[in-house]
Amino acid sequence: MPARTHRIVIGVMGPAACDPQTAQMARAIGRGIAERGGVLLCGGRGGVMEAAAAGAREIAGLTIGILPGTSARESPPNPFIDIALFTGLGEARNWLNVCASDAVIAIGGGFGTLSEIALALKAQKPVVLVGSWHFEIEGVVPNAPRASSAAEAVGLAFAAVGEAAKR
Amino acid sequence: MPARTHRIVIGVMGPAACDPQTAQMARAIGRGIAERGGVLLCGGRGGVMEAAAAGAREIAGLTIGILPGTSARESPPNPFIDIALFTGLGEARNWLNVCASDAVIAIGGGFGTLSEIALALKAQKPVVLVGSWHFEIEGVVPNAPRASSAAEAVGLAFAAVGEAAKR
Amino acid sequence: MPARTHRIVIGVMGPAACDPQTAQMARAIGRGIAERGGVLLCGGRGGVMEAAAAGAREIAGLTIGILPGTSARESPPNPFIDIALFTGLGEARNWLNVCASDAVIAIGGGFGTLSEIALALKAQKPVVLVGSWHFEIEGVVPNAPRASSAAEAVGLAFAAVGEAAKR
Amino acid sequence: MPARTHRIVIGVMGPAACDPQTAQMARAIGRGIAERGGVLLCGGRGGVMEAAAAGAREIAGLTIGILPGTSARESPPNPFIDIALFTGLGEARNWLNVCASDAVIAIGGGFGTLSEIALALKAQKPVVLVGSWHFEIEGVVPNAPRASSAAEAVGLAFAAVGEAAKR
Repeated sequence: MPARTHRIVIGVMGPAACDPQTAQMARAIGRGIAERGGVLLCGGRGGVMEAAAAGAREIAGLTIGILPGTSARESPPNPFIDIALFTGLGEARNWLNVCASDAVIAIGGGFGTLSEIALALKAQKPVVLVGSWHFEIEGVVPNAPRASSAAEAVGLAFAAVGEAAKR
Repeated sequence: MPARTHRIVIGVMGPAACDPQTAQMARAIGRGIAERGGVLLCGGRGGVMEAAAAGAREIAGLTIGILPGTSARESPPNPFIDIALFTGLGEARNWLNVCASDAVIAIGGGFGTLSEIALALKAQKPVVLVGSWHFEIEGVVPNAPRASSAAEAVGLAFAAVGEAAKR
Repeated sequence: MPARTHRIVIGVMGPAACDPQTAQMARAIGRGIAERGGVLLCGGRGGVMEAAAAGAREIAGLTIGILPGTSARESPPNPFIDIALFTGLGEARNWLNVCASDAVIAIGGGFGTLSEIALALKAQKPVVLVGSWHFEIEGVVPNAPRASSAAEAVGLAFAAVGEAAKR
Repeated sequence: MPARTHRIVIGVMGPAACDPQTAQMARAIGRGIAERGGVLLCGGRGGVMEAAAAGAREIAGLTIGILPGTSARESPPNPFIDIALFTGLGEARNWLNVCASDAVIAIGGGFGTLSEIALALKAQKPVVLVGSWHFEIEGVVPNAPRASSAAEAVGLAFAAVGEAAKR
């Protein structure tokens, strides 16, 4: 494989509605991604997605929203999205959110977020959990580190992307 | 909404490789779905998917496989599939498996199966778990009943479809 | 590749609204597909899709509808659909219609139909045109035979599936 | 609808292999899009897609590639792509290319390009044709202006986006 020439994209996944504490965490994570030169990708709507995009934009980071509808009329992006990619795929866009990211940080709950965690693990993308779902099967817990601060979450995500690049 | 004129479709989700005991369970569930007049939908490959389709075919039930590739060359269906629907969507077909089913029975592990459980809950489709993933968030376990026998799993799935029809 | 064990699926593509003459043609084509033992696949809505499904059902042929919404509430199938596969993919389901068919018969106009013709040719699926789009580039017309009767259209589609099977 | 806060995205569609003259045209169009502040979106591969991205990058324009695979290993982006959005959707990504663009410029031939033209017209996105497909039905030619120079193509695309914004 030739040397990588495209930018690092970190996806931040979480529900469209969240409490202020979760929003603050998402904002700090979004900012942290931008500080390290990453592109912030999210679902483009409110809640965790808006807070993360707002955080990245605090320091002029680039933000991408993967929207469910075919146009801004159908699914308006939050005001912190630079590039609104309309998909017309509805909830099937969850797969895209994962595929289009080098690593995924999941914040908080929601079934969409759980699906994105599972799809990321399926696609062998690194996943970092921040106060999100717990899941196990027959006593085995899959490999997805948990972070308790924004700095830790961002650090783990970028480290995992670095590791993946060496493979 | 007009009266329903199309058939009931029950999706059976599970990994492409499984132990004999899981396969036996999947086979009994597939047969049970066909006995109640349901169409068996699965991912069309081996393991749980093949066993479930084989079970339905024991009594001439109709079986549908939602395949990842664009043709039988790319992703050959198992020999118990009547209708092989090639999608060319790869793992994004997980969303289809869920949307195309009236209810979903998840058997065993795998990240694909976990994503299908989450996507079904997101799409408000009934989900029945058979020895599959445990998941919770902040101590809350989502509403997805666990069955310990094939008969119980099939009974729960059809009952849930009946309930959903009344809503 | 092992011997084929799944059924032949012929897709009939066309607009959701059409004149009586086009509907009659679609109906005769649907019936012809069922007479030859094929499964009729369509977009599951009205117009050409409903007429083709009605034709197949005249002689108890099996009919599949690939619907845009996630449920019958969002996109009710026409009453001649046996298996309603909800996709939640909106117009992106056009790709599925094509991938899931062994051959495609396009009847009449509409941009959706033109996209299905193009996607079928891209996916190297046989395409038969019945009074549909004309298209060429630099004077070259792609290989998609035109039929002037239902019998001719069905004959060409099954012949092409037979040819493809030998490759 | 609130005031638009996200950037204008122009999609350039065309085959993965092309002659030098077509590549030169694509390059001039990509540059023209960037000169007017637009984001260049393409399929991320070679031929027309690479030439258009290279043109945008000549003046530091932002370029997005919508790739068919799930990772750079599966589908390496061309070296002029800033943001490589892997989709894992194969050719179904054509729908995305169209939905994610405010307007589409189609250069040259290929069935994928024809499908993108048709999907764009279906999604009511403006389409500009540069030496690409001719298509009509019953003597009616759909509304998609033809441009004979890069400047004309870019001008028509941005004018159409402006018109669409007023609707």
